[in-house]
Amino acid sequence: MEAIRGLKAFGAVCPFLHKSTISGLRSLSTQATPAGNRLAHLAQTKCPLMSMAYAAKSFSTSSAVAIKPATAPMVEQEKQQQATFTSQVRGYASIAEQQAESVRLQRQEAAAAAAAALGQSGGVAAEAEQQPDRTFPGGRPTNALGFAKHVVTSARPGFDYEGFYHAELDKKHKDKSYRYFNNINRLRAKFPIAHTARKEDEVTVHCSNDYLGMGRHPVVLKAMHDTLNTYGAGAGGTRNIAGNAQLHLSLEKELADLHQKPGALVFSSCYVANVETLSTLGAKLPGCVILSDESNHASMIQGIRHSRAQKMIWKHNDLVDLENKLKTLPLETPKIIAFESVYSMCGSVAPIEEICDLADKYGAITFLDEVHAVGMYGPTGAGVAEHLDFEANRNGGIEGSVMDRIDIITGTLAKAYGVVGGYIAGSARFVDMVRSYAPGFIFTTSLPPSNAAGARAAVAYQKEHLGDRQQQQRNVASVKAKFASIGIPVIPNPSHIVPLFVGSAEQAKAASDLLLVKHKLYVQSINFPTVAIGSERLRITPSPLHTEAQLDQLVEAVNDVWVELGLKRSDELVGRKELAGKPVNLWTAEQLALEDQVFPPLDATFPDLNAASLGARA
Amino acid sequence: MEAIRGLKAFGAVCPFLHKSTISGLRSLSTQATPAGNRLAHLAQTKCPLMSMAYAAKSFSTSSAVAIKPATAPMVEQEKQQQATFTSQVRGYASIAEQQAESVRLQRQEAAAAAAAALGQSGGVAAEAEQQPDRTFPGGRPTNALGFAKHVVTSARPGFDYEGFYHAELDKKHKDKSYRYFNNINRLRAKFPIAHTARKEDEVTVHCSNDYLGMGRHPVVLKAMHDTLNTYGAGAGGTRNIAGNAQLHLSLEKELADLHQKPGALVFSSCYVANVETLSTLGAKLPGCVILSDESNHASMIQGIRHSRAQKMIWKHNDLVDLENKLKTLPLETPKIIAFESVYSMCGSVAPIEEICDLADKYGAITFLDEVHAVGMYGPTGAGVAEHLDFEANRNGGIEGSVMDRIDIITGTLAKAYGVVGGYIAGSARFVDMVRSYAPGFIFTTSLPPSNAAGARAAVAYQKEHLGDRQQQQRNVASVKAKFASIGIPVIPNPSHIVPLFVGSAEQAKAASDLLLVKHKLYVQSINFPTVAIGSERLRITPSPLHTEAQLDQLVEAVNDVWVELGLKRSDELVGRKELAGKPVNLWTAEQLALEDQVFPPLDATFPDLNAASLGARA
Repeated sequence: MEAIRGLKAFGAVCPFLHKSTISGLRSLSTQATPAGNRLAHLAQTKCPLMSMAYAAKSFSTSSAVAIKPATAPMVEQEKQQQATFTSQVRGYASIAEQQAESVRLQRQEAAAAAAAALGQSGGVAAEAEQQPDRTFPGGRPTNALGFAKHVVTSARPGFDYEGFYHAELDKKHKDKSYRYFNNINRLRAKFPIAHTARKEDEVTVHCSNDYLGMGRHPVVLKAMHDTLNTYGAGAGGTRNIAGNAQLHLSLEKELADLHQKPGALVFSSCYVANVETLSTLGAKLPGCVILSDESNHASMIQGIRHSRAQKMIWKHNDLVDLENKLKTLPLETPKIIAFESVYSMCGSVAPIEEICDLADKYGAITFLDEVHAVGMYGPTGAGVAEHLDFEANRNGGIEGSVMDRIDIITGTLAKAYGVVGGYIAGSARFVDMVRSYAPGFIFTTSLPPSNAAGARAAVAYQKEHLGDRQQQQRNVASVKAKFASIGIPVIPNPSHIVPLFVGSAEQAKAASDLLLVKHKLYVQSINFPTVAIGSERLRITPSPLHTEAQLDQLVEAVNDVWVELGLKRSDELVGRKELAGKPVNLWTAEQLALEDQVFPPLDATFPDLNAASLGARA
Repeated sequence: MEAIRGLKAFGAVCPFLHKSTISGLRSLSTQATPAGNRLAHLAQTKCPLMSMAYAAKSFSTSSAVAIKPATAPMVEQEKQQQATFTSQVRGYASIAEQQAESVRLQRQEAAAAAAAALGQSGGVAAEAEQQPDRTFPGGRPTNALGFAKHVVTSARPGFDYEGFYHAELDKKHKDKSYRYFNNINRLRAKFPIAHTARKEDEVTVHCSNDYLGMGRHPVVLKAMHDTLNTYGAGAGGTRNIAGNAQLHLSLEKELADLHQKPGALVFSSCYVANVETLSTLGAKLPGCVILSDESNHASMIQGIRHSRAQKMIWKHNDLVDLENKLKTLPLETPKIIAFESVYSMCGSVAPIEEICDLADKYGAITFLDEVHAVGMYGPTGAGVAEHLDFEANRNGGIEGSVMDRIDIITGTLAKAYGVVGGYIAGSARFVDMVRSYAPGFIFTTSLPPSNAAGARAAVAYQKEHLGDRQQQQRNVASVKAKFASIGIPVIPNPSHIVPLFVGSAEQAKAASDLLLVKHKLYVQSINFPTVAIGSERLRITPSPLHTEAQLDQLVEAVNDVWVELGLKRSDELVGRKELAGKPVNLWTAEQLALEDQVFPPLDATFPDLNAASLGARA
């Protein structure tokens, strides 16, 4: 009875035992498993304290738990078991005391890691602290099974892997580039509102790349629901093995048509599309040289690196530097000029037409990443290259247009089109070659049919509707003007990106945190390695769905944060190269005043020349 | 009037003009656009014949179409325009005749490319022939805009890019490794039935990697529909910028728990997970050597290549060869042993425990790809490593188990779990390091919330249900036995893969085509580079949902194809290394007889030790 009272008292504070009944525990202690009796086994694998004790090998050899599986009749063994069992519980308590401090320390470490993963910013961090068990990056920090194991298995001879990982992470902490992910759950019905880790904690999102809100568009969602109903969840295979469906082909046809190219090919993401295309081309073309804008995205840098082709980096958007580099190469040498239309972190836009001229002159092909432009520029949303011949493309395209001259266009389905996936568009043979040789295309499961359907619906919708990208541009212009009027330093650019210059990783993060906690506005700080050290910023992306009130609230909150943190205004930053220039906006006033067009049905190969229907396009 | 009659007669056969009214055409010819009059412009950009003429530059300088934009009043110019217009139409007709043969030839080429993309197999090929305009790989082959342009722009000086692409494709055609994608649309409500390019043409799919049919499971689809409703389509950003939601964290927690590891991290695909993890580790660990099984998947090969670490390839599943290579390396050198549990094209299974022994002995870490095993082996579906300690893991896991000893496990959410995405699981610091350094994780949009929710539901469901993987194994055993009884050469293995040895690329494709066309069964042929030349095969993956009748139909059809094509039977292939051995199946008869378990709720950190609930798990 004393043992039972002791057990009850202990159970009241023990997270492992507290719900157990005496009979339940007794029953467990008499069941044999390959790893010992069942209670010992559970303690070893589930109890946060005991598992550590086992792991330390100090307990498993102790007679207190070395209970042999019950083989004799139950009745005869019961008394002995009762005694052993009581002793075992006491053993737990004793070991537990010894381990308690170490567990407490580990919990602290886990909570720190949890905060790292979920963001220490305001409401999110508070959540992480409240529920340390639930907030680790995909793991279970306070489940001692994992932690204890790694204490033990570090006994492996040779290189100290865990120590190395720790040192690499430490570097990130020290240079302030360690990333804290905010927990942001964007709500379909309340765009641009999201909830954080707590459902009741709502914030307004001002930095999503769902630029046009297509991720919540009924046309997209209907296509996805319908496709889930008809074709289920996943593709079920690679494009070559059971994973090539009509929806993939239709999406590719839609994209080829968007860019007025003979072919297109869809990948898991545009990161993958860029890597695979540049690495395949660069590796295959004999003696290929890739000329890469210095501000190119990581995916292009990796693709070039993996190709092992010679690489020449030219200064950002600098035609003179590009030409000087092209001049040094023989005309017959295969060359790829790789660049972006809209550079996502500063909003600058490449001189696409002039780069085409250089490509023609020096026998290069052009590789243009339109990831931050598709859906948002051009009469049909094909990007900046299309935008540059706005009227001609609005009337059905024209040979020799800038878009026509670009050899390879890459784009994403995950930003303005609101879903996921990436693609390339270009000549039929080029696309077929990448299809036939790129391992990251060949050896990967194709996009789920519902994603393909949603993306295709978004592309088709934006082809026919100017309104969303026009309204986005109006909101962007409005916000930029309001910031300018109060001296908040917007990095000038001709595009839809609104980068606010801060110039310090800690201040940028502090500003982002303050916006989130105090003002319930989410604007991610952009630090190294995404931007250079010393040019840290906040990056704002107004959508067409943000209301004027929401944009005004943002401007006021940013002003408040600038005051509270003492951040520099435009007049204190005169001469900073990031803030130089006054670019002309890509969208003109006339373009912003155009009405939506009505195009022929998607699959009509030849235009209906009935004057009435064409009239509607004029 | 003659002109009008002529126009009508011409229009009747002209795909460009046939729907046009006279007044419509006249109106168009008087509208100015930047590229000339509107009709000429449309002809140039939309007409399949005229655009080629323009592209060849032989027409744009002709007076017949060099119509100046109308600037004088309409009435005065009308007569002149009528004449010019008629002349223009005749010009079209004349040029059209000259171009017709070349267009016909191009259409043939396009149809061939279309067939290449959509499969020349039976119903699919027929579809491609019927609708050549619609079946090009993502493009528009017979839209002369694209084709014509490429005729013209090949005038660029320097390297002949298009010629190079053509030559690279030609190599594939010549060595028979050019791939023809079948058009397979797997129907949710009729699993394992799919329709081909024609909805009424249904086939039974026997080669999908949706191994358990989770892609059509109501639990998965409900999670996806609900999530689309709540959170919309796309994630809207990278994990660092607006794309980190609770659903991503929950999925990672679920996966870490599945593999009993402290951490997990989700990627766009397991291709990306493997590439990023191996390339990051291999590049960072100082002087790292990666020891790679010779049969490893392309994703691992690429990851190792990109890391630029030293690579040692050991013979497939050969412990002696692996140890001989390990012996040559200093103990302190960081080493990664990279291998798979189930090798997907032959079904062989690695000696995981013995590899862990070698890793411990020589100070290496283990990287185990469980892509073709997660969901299908082990008491909770964690894969072969879990399966090897079936009872212990069924009872909650055990320290020192094979799964516990593996340092890094990678898996997919796109095969047995039926959705899309890939992941790694391992120590907290390891996961955090990859999270912090791998560009393909950092710089890519995160998985759509609905995909994350669907995948999590599938993982959670399979954790608690043995039934699907047991039934799959029964179906696999049944099919293997039936094939064996009639001498169809199944490559022997201990897993769920049913590879039928053919040994020739052409014969394997012919067998696959015959199954599709004659028997309405889809089994993809597996040729180089997926398998070695001379070991081509058909790869069958029976699901738990295939009925006995469907499996019997498959066996009969395969027998019929073997007769029709004169393919070799087992007795004619004695001595082939691919067919050697009699492996013991991973699933034992006892394991196949076990009942489903009932586990505690997903988020319960500590087990409820109430004996009754535990009893239900025994």
